Order: sequence, then structure tokens, then C-alpha cells
Amino acid sequence: MRTVRVVITLKPGVLDAPGQAIRQGLRALGFAVDEVRAGKYLELALPHGAGDVEEMCARFLANPLIETWRIEEGERQMATAGGTAE
Amino acid sequence: MRTVRVVITLKPGVLDAPGQAIRQGLRALGFAVDEVRAGKYLELALPHGAGDVEEMCARFLANPLIETWRIEEGERQMATAGGTAE
Repeated sequence: MRTVRVVITLKPGVLDAPGQAIRQGLRALGFAVDEVRAGKYLELALPHGAGDVEEMCARFLANPLIETWRIEEGERQMATAGGTAE
Repeated sequence: MRTVRVVITLKPGVLDAPGQAIRQGLRALGFAVDEVRAGKYLELALPHGAGDVEEMCARFLANPLIETWRIEEGERQMATAGGTAE
């Protein structure tokens, strides 16, 4: 089993309403912040030899019209559902 | 201005309903995937010398009861809202 990390972000120029709301919230709390862009983060546990992650992104995980993604083969430990909360 | 990337993920053992839904969707499309964990990704543009990102996460961006986060000082180019869509 291998772990792949996917980061999906809006393309430049696409309105990021959640990012703007987060920026507003941070500023209301007194934090100095110029801009916030929000995105999605996914950790996929894949069987060995399986899965074209690029195709998963293009067909299902992201919207290629407005989003870009980057794929990182990861050695980081996955937070599995079988673990216990800290 | 410096860019900081924040990845927020659910702690191990916390039910990840979006992750399960994404896994189901991938499998329905024929992709072999064992598990999916979903999280949030944020890019913050901060003024120089400003902002304790750790405190932002603990107080506002994440829920410390059920989520963990990691903070990466980034050299990656931020996808600013002023740009044009590709």
C-alpha cells in the first residue's frame, strides 16, 4: 500500500469565497493577513501498482476548469480511521 | 510578504465522512483505492514579521479537539486573485 497526497487549489483569477471569509475572520481576531486562498487536501491509500492519481483528479477529485492539483507520493504516515484520537 | 501553507487534517480515529464519500465515488468509477482522508489546505499571504500561524490554527483555522495541522513556510508561488485563469 502506498500513500499519495493530493492538493487541489483554485486557479489564479477564480473567486475564492471561502478564502475571503477566512481572511475576514482572521482580521476580525486581530491577525494581520493579506490574502488567504483555500483548497482541498486528500490522502489516498492505494494498493501497490494501482491507480492513476492524475486521472482520478481530472475525472473526479477536481474540476479541471477552475482547479489545479499537485500530486505528492508520500512517506508521511496516514491518519487511518483505525487509530485512536490523541 | 511571505507565503505560509497550512494543511489541516482530522486526527486519527475521527470519522471522516467526506473521505468515505470520495472513496466510494472513486470506487464507483473503477479506481482501486483503499482509503481516503480529506483535509483542508490554506495558503496565507502574510506581511513580513506579522502573524503567529500556530495561534491562527489553534484559535480559528482548525478545531484542536479533532484536527491537527502542519505549517510550511513556502516558496511556492501563491495563486493570487489578481491573476488570470489559465
